[in-house]
Amino acid sequence: MNQEYIKPDAWSIIEEGWSPSMVKSSESLFSIGNGAMGQRANFEEQYSGDTFQGSYVAGVYYPDKTRVGWWKNGYPEYFAKVLNSPNFIGIDVFIDGLPLDLAQVQEVREFRRELNMKEGWYERSFIAQISDDKEIKVESRRFLSLKHDELGVINYKVTAVKGNLSITFQPYIDAGITNEDSNWDDAFWAIEELYSDQHQGMIRSRTNKTNFHVATYMQSELLKDEEHIQYATHLDQNDTTVRHEASGDIAQGESLTLRKYAGYVSSLNHNKYELFDASKKILALATEHGYEKLFNEQVEEWSNIWEMADITIDGDLKAQQGIRFNIFQLNQTYLGKDSRLNIGPKGFTGEKYGGSTYWDTEAYCIPFYMATKDQQVARNLLKYRYDQLDKAIENAEKLGFTNGAALYPMVTMNGEESHNEWEITFEEIHRNGAMVFAIYNYVRYTGDYSYVPEMGLEVMIAIARFWHQRATFSQKAGKFMILGVTGPNEYENNVNNNWYTNYIAKWCIDQAVEHLDKVKDGYPEDYDRIISLTKLTGSERASWQEVSDGMYFPYDEEYGVYLQQDGFMDKEIIPVSKLHQSQRPINQKWSWDRILRSCYIKQADVLQGFYFFEDHFSKAELEKHFDFYEPLTVHESSLSPCVHSIQAAKLDRMDQAYEFYLRTSRLDLDDYNKEVEEGCHITSMAGTWMSIVEGFGGLQIKDDTPHFTTKLPKEWAGFSFKINFRDQILNVQVTQQGTQVQLKGDQPQDVVVNGKKITLQPQVITA
Amino acid sequence: MNQEYIKPDAWSIIEEGWSPSMVKSSESLFSIGNGAMGQRANFEEQYSGDTFQGSYVAGVYYPDKTRVGWWKNGYPEYFAKVLNSPNFIGIDVFIDGLPLDLAQVQEVREFRRELNMKEGWYERSFIAQISDDKEIKVESRRFLSLKHDELGVINYKVTAVKGNLSITFQPYIDAGITNEDSNWDDAFWAIEELYSDQHQGMIRSRTNKTNFHVATYMQSELLKDEEHIQYATHLDQNDTTVRHEASGDIAQGESLTLRKYAGYVSSLNHNKYELFDASKKILALATEHGYEKLFNEQVEEWSNIWEMADITIDGDLKAQQGIRFNIFQLNQTYLGKDSRLNIGPKGFTGEKYGGSTYWDTEAYCIPFYMATKDQQVARNLLKYRYDQLDKAIENAEKLGFTNGAALYPMVTMNGEESHNEWEITFEEIHRNGAMVFAIYNYVRYTGDYSYVPEMGLEVMIAIARFWHQRATFSQKAGKFMILGVTGPNEYENNVNNNWYTNYIAKWCIDQAVEHLDKVKDGYPEDYDRIISLTKLTGSERASWQEVSDGMYFPYDEEYGVYLQQDGFMDKEIIPVSKLHQSQRPINQKWSWDRILRSCYIKQADVLQGFYFFEDHFSKAELEKHFDFYEPLTVHESSLSPCVHSIQAAKLDRMDQAYEFYLRTSRLDLDDYNKEVEEGCHITSMAGTWMSIVEGFGGLQIKDDTPHFTTKLPKEWAGFSFKINFRDQILNVQVTQQGTQVQLKGDQPQDVVVNGKKITLQPQVITA
Repeated sequence: MNQEYIKPDAWSIIEEGWSPSMVKSSESLFSIGNGAMGQRANFEEQYSGDTFQGSYVAGVYYPDKTRVGWWKNGYPEYFAKVLNSPNFIGIDVFIDGLPLDLAQVQEVREFRRELNMKEGWYERSFIAQISDDKEIKVESRRFLSLKHDELGVINYKVTAVKGNLSITFQPYIDAGITNEDSNWDDAFWAIEELYSDQHQGMIRSRTNKTNFHVATYMQSELLKDEEHIQYATHLDQNDTTVRHEASGDIAQGESLTLRKYAGYVSSLNHNKYELFDASKKILALATEHGYEKLFNEQVEEWSNIWEMADITIDGDLKAQQGIRFNIFQLNQTYLGKDSRLNIGPKGFTGEKYGGSTYWDTEAYCIPFYMATKDQQVARNLLKYRYDQLDKAIENAEKLGFTNGAALYPMVTMNGEESHNEWEITFEEIHRNGAMVFAIYNYVRYTGDYSYVPEMGLEVMIAIARFWHQRATFSQKAGKFMILGVTGPNEYENNVNNNWYTNYIAKWCIDQAVEHLDKVKDGYPEDYDRIISLTKLTGSERASWQEVSDGMYFPYDEEYGVYLQQDGFMDKEIIPVSKLHQSQRPINQKWSWDRILRSCYIKQADVLQGFYFFEDHFSKAELEKHFDFYEPLTVHESSLSPCVHSIQAAKLDRMDQAYEFYLRTSRLDLDDYNKEVEEGCHITSMAGTWMSIVEGFGGLQIKDDTPHFTTKLPKEWAGFSFKINFRDQILNVQVTQQGTQVQLKGDQPQDVVVNGKKITLQPQVITA
Repeated sequence: MNQEYIKPDAWSIIEEGWSPSMVKSSESLFSIGNGAMGQRANFEEQYSGDTFQGSYVAGVYYPDKTRVGWWKNGYPEYFAKVLNSPNFIGIDVFIDGLPLDLAQVQEVREFRRELNMKEGWYERSFIAQISDDKEIKVESRRFLSLKHDELGVINYKVTAVKGNLSITFQPYIDAGITNEDSNWDDAFWAIEELYSDQHQGMIRSRTNKTNFHVATYMQSELLKDEEHIQYATHLDQNDTTVRHEASGDIAQGESLTLRKYAGYVSSLNHNKYELFDASKKILALATEHGYEKLFNEQVEEWSNIWEMADITIDGDLKAQQGIRFNIFQLNQTYLGKDSRLNIGPKGFTGEKYGGSTYWDTEAYCIPFYMATKDQQVARNLLKYRYDQLDKAIENAEKLGFTNGAALYPMVTMNGEESHNEWEITFEEIHRNGAMVFAIYNYVRYTGDYSYVPEMGLEVMIAIARFWHQRATFSQKAGKFMILGVTGPNEYENNVNNNWYTNYIAKWCIDQAVEHLDKVKDGYPEDYDRIISLTKLTGSERASWQEVSDGMYFPYDEEYGVYLQQDGFMDKEIIPVSKLHQSQRPINQKWSWDRILRSCYIKQADVLQGFYFFEDHFSKAELEKHFDFYEPLTVHESSLSPCVHSIQAAKLDRMDQAYEFYLRTSRLDLDDYNKEVEEGCHITSMAGTWMSIVEGFGGLQIKDDTPHFTTKLPKEWAGFSFKINFRDQILNVQVTQQGTQVQLKGDQPQDVVVNGKKITLQPQVITA
């Protein structure tokens, strides 16, 4: 059922053979990014076949006017869209005056793509038969520099395989682009200024409404058989494009290479009137460094990332490739350098889903960044939400909440809600809980409590206020209830008392109260500031506590399980295994009402709570709930398999854990959901990482101590991973012989490995 | 709060004084129609002020491509839109060469509109000061002929009040129109052919996709001081418009009148290539008859309608005006001559809401038509649904139902579903019940059982099949439940076990079973045909019966009331009277989630069931439920006050009954909902009729006998109404002295009046 055209390889994603129908899938899978910008693996040269063009600049968005069938009060007016940005990769190629176009040539042979994850570059090569007596070989390699994150490099080499040929390159930048996903066919960009000289071209564009200014720039070099040669540029410029031209004649066996330095600088980081100057500076640096140095820097930067983030899996090449692809894509998407950015669900691989930030970040992504980067990166992710607290309070006000209650948005780019389905936007409020969970998780992991008095407590207070107001006291039950919600399982809408929501709501209030006390004791100045700012009174706090103490949780006595929501047991309970294959995925085969009234669960819901709050429940309780809910779960969210993999491992269901692992790690490579054309599922990739580290590695932090309870799938000879724990590196290696944990650092560190407490001594590092 | 600019009058709707801000409201309120076509009260002459143009042809629609924020499986691709049609009323007027435009003239005085409901015409008059020495008086009267329902007549008279003036009329027809309510700015119409000669103009347009052909035609006469005069037409024709010109000079005190005969003929009733011929035939008839005869016919036709349909109210002019306006608009909208047509929620007064047919027809409109027209009219309304049974089966199939189960659409023009909010389209399935209720109601009222074997039983079977499949067996409760629905109260979505839905579902199954037996006994040939057609087996019937017998009904023991749905008592129950005025209407002031989780009810829901099935519940039960639910009801649906008025009257809450009556009868005249600009609420007008006949008149049909339990509001000296009961007329007159019922017919008729059974003897009618 799934695609299998990606060649298994430990360090690369490889496609071999020319298959026009796979072009859009490959454009997603071979995407490259450097945290600041990224692009789909579109061809540099003209291509008249089916393609989905995409280039993206992090943090640059457009508020596209909302489109709905029937307006509901509270809907956001605008939906912040990730923007397709000007194209800087374009290089049209002419062979003896005729354009090169893989959809038009006589034959394409030896077509190959490689995304080299170890070194951070993408290469495409092929032989094109132009006519009976003309053949060329193209090798095009490109990368987006991690070190100079406004710079991209393309090395486009044409070799005459048959015939003596005249080759013309037309490198260009094109600001005349559109978003496939536009609601009203608005023009997202206005072009402000074009510039071109002999070897440099620049266009300054401005996003409408948001007024981000972005300069797209390029400069080209020409090489014959790897030697630089002079060339006279023919300039061509229209309203939206700057185009250069560089030509040369090559004899059979010789090659001509166009090297293009290109990229974006934007008003996020520069004065908007100095963008051309900024471009020139980068180009000067690029020219000074030269291709080899830039390339070597790239290899080194990626080497540094892998040094910390790599996970090895022995004896299972597809599993190995899967996890590295996931780690690679996460690093391409977000590196944590800029607290204004976040982890878009499609990263730089597509434009589907507006906005960059979902609860995915707090629920799934933060553990990865905490463990594989400096802890400042995770702090930046927390700070992102703190910085948007005012907007979250505004969002709540739009829905009728008062007194500084905050509802974080379902989807956002700048803190404003961008989603517009009432059942999600207004009701999938559990997302607020993930904000507090992320703070808790961060403090637990890093030991950095300072975040709470400095920023976190204000967020907790605003969220406690929300839950307090959102709860309803049921006279009937004598309990507080939360009515009309959508839980993590989006295959239920407008239900009463979603257990996960109620549970995390209560927990959020308890956290706020607990940390108010802690901050009062430990950080009295912060406490006074916060109390003065929030005007929080003792009686308000007491009223929160009433809600927490009186919270209702749906529970079924007969089965001994918490119920996903009120009335769940009135459904026909038929396990997914009894659903005929022809009925799946149900989100494609069934009408929405049928999905809603079925017992089928899109992604972990009660089990999501068991995952977050694993210490609150016994293994027996987990087992009972896993056995009840997993068989009803269709895993039609990319975020579902990872949580289930972790829990299956915990329950020693290793076959299931392994199966879920493969599903999450190769979701895009094997295109489980038949939609990789639209882009990759970036945020769920962090879930894949969790399923190794927290699932098979069994990592838990308890009392400032990492615990590892390791499990080895029978398909694997072994696996290893590293985590950065409080600025020291723990290297965990699991084999059939046992588990080894090594410490790299300068302080002793207690760890608990499979129940045994060990104090690791620092490895002395001598360089 | 409400508008009060309409002058109270027993037989007319009158506006006096020029108020540009009321133009759009008046365009709705003064709309005219004749069942086959209709138009808003737009000005004939040019008007550059704010206006909402609308002309409509019954049965002509366009399938506008659906617009949604997020697509759900099962949504219809297209939304059938009532179309704004070519304009035939246009007459541009020039005074000494300058265009007459009320937004531009120096002053407007004595502006007056009258919609004469008794005679069925609309007149507008005013004095316009063109300049210091030029004043004209305009009197424009128009009507759409009931007798010749493709013909409209306009008599546009200009009198020189000050100055000797040269008057030019430019009558035109214009097919270059748009719909304000278009989703994608599609062109709904294509113009096929234009024709013009000296005195006639015609345009044949075709709707895109649906290919209805409509010819819009006109012919004009010119009169000076009421005398016909010859005139030379100047012809002007562009791509979308045919325009004639007729001029004359008048001295002060003299008048010039343009008389325009115009209208539509369409491919619904003619060969599409013969539409111009058909137009010419009507014009020949119009010319032959002449204005006076056509006008007299109109008066007579309306007199016939009123003879049967009028309701008098003594001592309360606003109440009298209200009921007549409602009866008038219902007759303008639908006359029951054509079983392809139905009763659009806005009639011919606006284009909001696509489609022509809602459950309003079955639930609210049929009683009016049964009682005030020949019973064939109600039968036509039933047949409309029978004719669309195949589409209803298709609709159900799209949602995953099988075996000939039918789900009638929420909104339709041709039987296909046109609505696209999942919570309505997929879940407001109680509408299916109204289809069966209408059949039951028709048979009960008319005694015409033949409809059941001929058509009705097939509908009942398909609907029973739907309910059988839609029910879920709850192991927990040991009962059948209906999960995930929206009841008549649309302020709740996706609830479980809406009492009204469950109740009517069970009742539908019981009806199907009962009538299967009856038809088997009484109409064996029909029975065999139906069984062979539907392949209904005994075991299938038994499985329906299981669902009916095991149906669950939510009930609260403490309050002794049926609950609107599961979990209703977990809400905060705070009566509407405690809601601050600033919070209302909640559908404008509150976010949707807040509405959903509140206890507030948009329109009768449990009480709707008590209304339909009044015999199933005691007065004490009604009282208990009314006292529980009415205080929680915000009546933000136009369909709410009527049901509550009826029930309040039954419970002797006369003040409340009267208040609800005023609200339903003057909803549009007093613009309770601040939206009359968009058009009138036609279907709820039938509810107004019910609130008199079934509420104050207390009409119920039991055992083939009309029962009247009359109640007189203290504000009224008396009231009277007539009903056509099985081809005889019962005239009911209620005064403070008592109730009189007169029979006009030729057979004795039993009636029960205020508990007393009387056999009425026929009044002998001698003409």
